[in-house]
Amino acid sequence: MREDFQAELDRVSSTLVTMAMAARETMRQASTALITADHTVALQVTARDAEIDVLYRVAEDRAYDLVARRQPVADDLRKAVTSIQVAADLRRMGGLAVHVARSVLRRHPAPAVVPELAELFQAMGTVADGLAGKIVSALSDHDAVLAAQLDRDDDAMDHLYQRLFAVLLSPDWPMGVEAAIDGALLGRYYERYADNAVNVGHHVVALITGKTD
Amino acid sequence: MREDFQAELDRVSSTLVTMAMAARETMRQASTALITADHTVALQVTARDAEIDVLYRVAEDRAYDLVARRQPVADDLRKAVTSIQVAADLRRMGGLAVHVARSVLRRHPAPAVVPELAELFQAMGTVADGLAGKIVSALSDHDAVLAAQLDRDDDAMDHLYQRLFAVLLSPDWPMGVEAAIDGALLGRYYERYADNAVNVGHHVVALITGKTD
Repeated sequence: MREDFQAELDRVSSTLVTMAMAARETMRQASTALITADHTVALQVTARDAEIDVLYRVAEDRAYDLVARRQPVADDLRKAVTSIQVAADLRRMGGLAVHVARSVLRRHPAPAVVPELAELFQAMGTVADGLAGKIVSALSDHDAVLAAQLDRDDDAMDHLYQRLFAVLLSPDWPMGVEAAIDGALLGRYYERYADNAVNVGHHVVALITGKTD
Repeated sequence: MREDFQAELDRVSSTLVTMAMAARETMRQASTALITADHTVALQVTARDAEIDVLYRVAEDRAYDLVARRQPVADDLRKAVTSIQVAADLRRMGGLAVHVARSVLRRHPAPAVVPELAELFQAMGTVADGLAGKIVSALSDHDAVLAAQLDRDDDAMDHLYQRLFAVLLSPDWPMGVEAAIDGALLGRYYERYADNAVNVGHHVVALITGKTD
């Protein structure tokens, strides 16, 4: 019976892995679209929003079904409910990738990031991809240590976010108000994406250990 | 037995009502601090973040405890788990009020909103307060109809958010880049607050009816 529960929880987790891969891939595409002002790729990102929504429903239904049939208690119950929270976090990450893609679509054919910021956003995209990749691995391998590292990894994004504002607010910023606002909001999407990744990290630790921090 | 479950769920809900009141009050204070550049009030908002966090833990623990002891199935199970999701949404709303308050602290003694935007942010504060007030009522009175109205009420915030960007991006915006970035990010906090309120609305409908939309 106990083993059945874990096997079924793993089935929920496999949906979470698929979601995490989608949340990673959409942000990777959104970052590419942002740097190259690629309308087609940006559109592909927005189209995947619905797919991530469906995966969320699948994960949620499987978790409810698991609890209803197995009636787990204590740690097992927390694990099952936590899997729903992970799914919600991953959906939010996908949503933030869509926000980036929408910025690209709004400014097309002009780029949504001015050349002065391209390098910074490339770095933000790389950090975001690393965080999401670690989530995929932590979920796939049930690796709580890897999940716990996300907290520290997020420092790199915070650092880039601060550098972004230093550039935007420097007295010799040459690009005007619109480009500054675009930069600030895009930066916020990446920063939120990373923050949600940290949340996933905490939840994945709970998903593996059954303990909340 | 069935009645006991509902009575215990109401106990979880009463914590959610307290959280909703705190999420409302913190944004109300943050809006006041923003319009009047009031350092003391802004500090009070940031101090209440920890209080909302504690309330979140209480709501979560009560919900887990309820599920563990009562072993509800089907709609009752969904209601119990949904109450955790409502708590998470409300915590996010409180967090956004803290973001507003931090902007006030960062610019103090200068105001974080320039006079050109004061009226717009006053209106955003009023809409946010209305949304949060409706959440308090919907949760207190188990009123699914009221909760469902939040979707429509959010249109007012979206409208204000669009007007904000029209002002910030108008060719005769006189206040420079920093004020524009502050305005854009503050606007985003209010817009996210309202979006989370809409999420609460959906979840409260599920909490009352046991059905997800």
